[in-house]
Amino acid sequence: MARVSTLPRNEAGTETVIGILRQAFGDRLQTGAAIRQQHGHTTTWIETQPPDAVVFPHSTEEVADIVRACAEHRVPVIGYGTGTSLEGHVNAPAGGICVDFTQMDRILAVHAEDLDCVVQPGVTREQLNTHLRDQGLFFPIDPGANASLGGMASTRASGTNAVRYGTMKDNVIALEAVMPDGRIIRTAQRARKSSAGYDLTRLLVGAEGTLGLITEITLRLHGIPEAMSAARCSFPTVDAACRAVMATIQYGIPVARIELLDRVAVRAVNAYSKMDLPEAPLLLLEFHGSEAGVAEQAETFGTIAEDVGGAGFEWTRSAEERNRLWKARHDFYWASLQLRPGATGFATDVCVPISRLAECVNAATARAEELGLLAPLVGHVGDGNFHISPIVDPNDADEIARTEDFAGWLAELAISMDGTCTGEHGIGQGKRDYLKQELGPATEVMAALKAAIDPHNIMNPGKIF
Amino acid sequence: MARVSTLPRNEAGTETVIGILRQAFGDRLQTGAAIRQQHGHTTTWIETQPPDAVVFPHSTEEVADIVRACAEHRVPVIGYGTGTSLEGHVNAPAGGICVDFTQMDRILAVHAEDLDCVVQPGVTREQLNTHLRDQGLFFPIDPGANASLGGMASTRASGTNAVRYGTMKDNVIALEAVMPDGRIIRTAQRARKSSAGYDLTRLLVGAEGTLGLITEITLRLHGIPEAMSAARCSFPTVDAACRAVMATIQYGIPVARIELLDRVAVRAVNAYSKMDLPEAPLLLLEFHGSEAGVAEQAETFGTIAEDVGGAGFEWTRSAEERNRLWKARHDFYWASLQLRPGATGFATDVCVPISRLAECVNAATARAEELGLLAPLVGHVGDGNFHISPIVDPNDADEIARTEDFAGWLAELAISMDGTCTGEHGIGQGKRDYLKQELGPATEVMAALKAAIDPHNIMNPGKIF
Repeated sequence: MARVSTLPRNEAGTETVIGILRQAFGDRLQTGAAIRQQHGHTTTWIETQPPDAVVFPHSTEEVADIVRACAEHRVPVIGYGTGTSLEGHVNAPAGGICVDFTQMDRILAVHAEDLDCVVQPGVTREQLNTHLRDQGLFFPIDPGANASLGGMASTRASGTNAVRYGTMKDNVIALEAVMPDGRIIRTAQRARKSSAGYDLTRLLVGAEGTLGLITEITLRLHGIPEAMSAARCSFPTVDAACRAVMATIQYGIPVARIELLDRVAVRAVNAYSKMDLPEAPLLLLEFHGSEAGVAEQAETFGTIAEDVGGAGFEWTRSAEERNRLWKARHDFYWASLQLRPGATGFATDVCVPISRLAECVNAATARAEELGLLAPLVGHVGDGNFHISPIVDPNDADEIARTEDFAGWLAELAISMDGTCTGEHGIGQGKRDYLKQELGPATEVMAALKAAIDPHNIMNPGKIF
Repeated sequence: MARVSTLPRNEAGTETVIGILRQAFGDRLQTGAAIRQQHGHTTTWIETQPPDAVVFPHSTEEVADIVRACAEHRVPVIGYGTGTSLEGHVNAPAGGICVDFTQMDRILAVHAEDLDCVVQPGVTREQLNTHLRDQGLFFPIDPGANASLGGMASTRASGTNAVRYGTMKDNVIALEAVMPDGRIIRTAQRARKSSAGYDLTRLLVGAEGTLGLITEITLRLHGIPEAMSAARCSFPTVDAACRAVMATIQYGIPVARIELLDRVAVRAVNAYSKMDLPEAPLLLLEFHGSEAGVAEQAETFGTIAEDVGGAGFEWTRSAEERNRLWKARHDFYWASLQLRPGATGFATDVCVPISRLAECVNAATARAEELGLLAPLVGHVGDGNFHISPIVDPNDADEIARTEDFAGWLAELAISMDGTCTGEHGIGQGKRDYLKQELGPATEVMAALKAAIDPHNIMNPGKIF
């Protein structure tokens, strides 16, 4: 496991706050070792740093009570949704109180006419979409995991269909949040656009719980398209696949998804999901629109793909085939682990301008090979975002060191290409140094904002900064 | 003219700074009365509050020099693009230095493959689109006026095609800015998405120059659609028109524009632009897509419109007819003034959830009539945003008072409907009280951010707060 430094703890304050919260929350305050351990669990190999207690609020007012107690006694507050973040966001390096939003999981309103809804932060995206289906609506952001919407907002999540529908920043209309002094604010009204003052919505989206706790989210919804179709196409090289992606985007085909799998990723998926995809760089696509529209989109893409040497282009309107294809894509993480049983995956997350994508992908796979790392690659390539994920023996210190070198090298490469070290996972504990490399003086402005809003650094300390 | 309060001035500091800047900028520092007057000019009736001097920088470094001098001597700094903002943004209630970006008007890079470009803040949207045309690209945000892109970013502008392409917040990828201490930051890299730290891009977009001066903008571009068509349809009532809008949005028709003109606005447009549109609530639309796609969109809209009693639906692929229609729409402001020669227009800017649009529009027109105001209405109704603009005799104190009552009443109504007092114009000097009504405690958080970033309140003082 990768070690991350701990921070000074406030033992006396913590004890006091636990006493206060136990009175108010009874059984909804938990301090057992197992539950604490589980709430510091991170999906990557960053070591677990459990909180001192876990509390399960039911309302915004209860969250405000928790934060006020913690503020008074200078005790850290860590928000928790489903624990699927990848950068140690739920760890408690200074101890403190984990606020688990699982029991704030109500869909408060669906305004079908306005294409929006209001949810509590513990609602998961699958729960929301199940609820919406009968009304012909859906919420598009899909990071793969069945994450909570509060967590997704906090990490500025995106995923496979951001190329068409944007990221969380584009699909959150307004937030209610408890600020570090316990004050409850609403960042915006429910209108679809506004020029009313600073964009606090976008400031909290992606703040990783370091500026406040999100307690209510107003989300933009979309009508379920009349027609959806999926397509796949293999390419002789990653270069060719990337050229097809660039042409698709530039041509203005409104693809809903366009995903790249490299040769190793295809091999993993074939084995795990019992597919027989050709072992070559692969693009998976989805089109949304009218019946005529999706046919037109698929055909236009087919022509583009053929032009750059794509082969085996197939598209289908069958929901069953489409779901099978995307299930295989979503199971990639588990498939990749099966390439080397007992090993663990380390997800990188760079995002570069599309014109540099092929170059960046090629350099990354070559470098992984040089370092002797087994590293399949998948990417939300319509956005220039890809994950090359070394599959590593967690007990092999040398391999871990090489993986960390690789991750740092890759972040630096992406930054040198005017890209970012994180397209969608966030900074958390794992990428703090890269953030400074990437944005330099801007990180000082971020730190000034943090100090102004959270002067005692109680909100998720040790993350981002 | 509406009076706005002045703020304490720093005469000695200003004199010192003007001395420093004169040395550095020579003729590019102007202090003549006419030029100062022009730089405090506001398009609405807020009285002019001229700055003490106007300076024309050529580079980011020069802007940083100006800001450093002003910071040292605590002198206000007001950014200026084309002066087309509507809420007194360019006024200097505490005096100070106006930074006119007209001479920072270079398009620094167009990355056609990445669908982005980098521009200086003085580039206007028409200049950019003329430059882009040969490459098959365009920048969609169109607030009507040929505004500067720095100004558009600063007010979070949008306009007629935000319903399809979003607002400035959705189309700015990254900014370079000079902060109030003269520090130069870049808010993000050029990747299409990122989860790297706080979203400083979106914090500066819409900050109205109160947190720093934008010196470079990376913008998202779009391919010019293969086909465009325009349509128009009259409706018996505003209600019916709004029902057609709601159905269009819910049905997922990707309209590029959908604009409402009420009966009075149609009358104004007919007279000014020599059109013969039926004097009834009117929707003007534009569709972007493939040849088949725009035909399908227009036909689907036609069916929707017919269902709610729309009449005289016509659509056209002719670029000439399309341009004539949109020219008439864009000239609405001048047309409305011709309804009453010698009068001036007062633009309101509320935006409500679409489900409340008809109700809000009807109440607004009824109220204007009650108050004896002549107030044509146009709206970006796909977003729920409309402008009802009393045409007022600037020398009639009673009429001005009724107009101010009306604007306050309308802002309150919109807020009560979960809407905003400003969809796209910004707060400036004119809407500071409404902002507090709208967002309450959140405005205290905004003030804390302002104090942290600009502790001496030198950046555009008297705006937003």
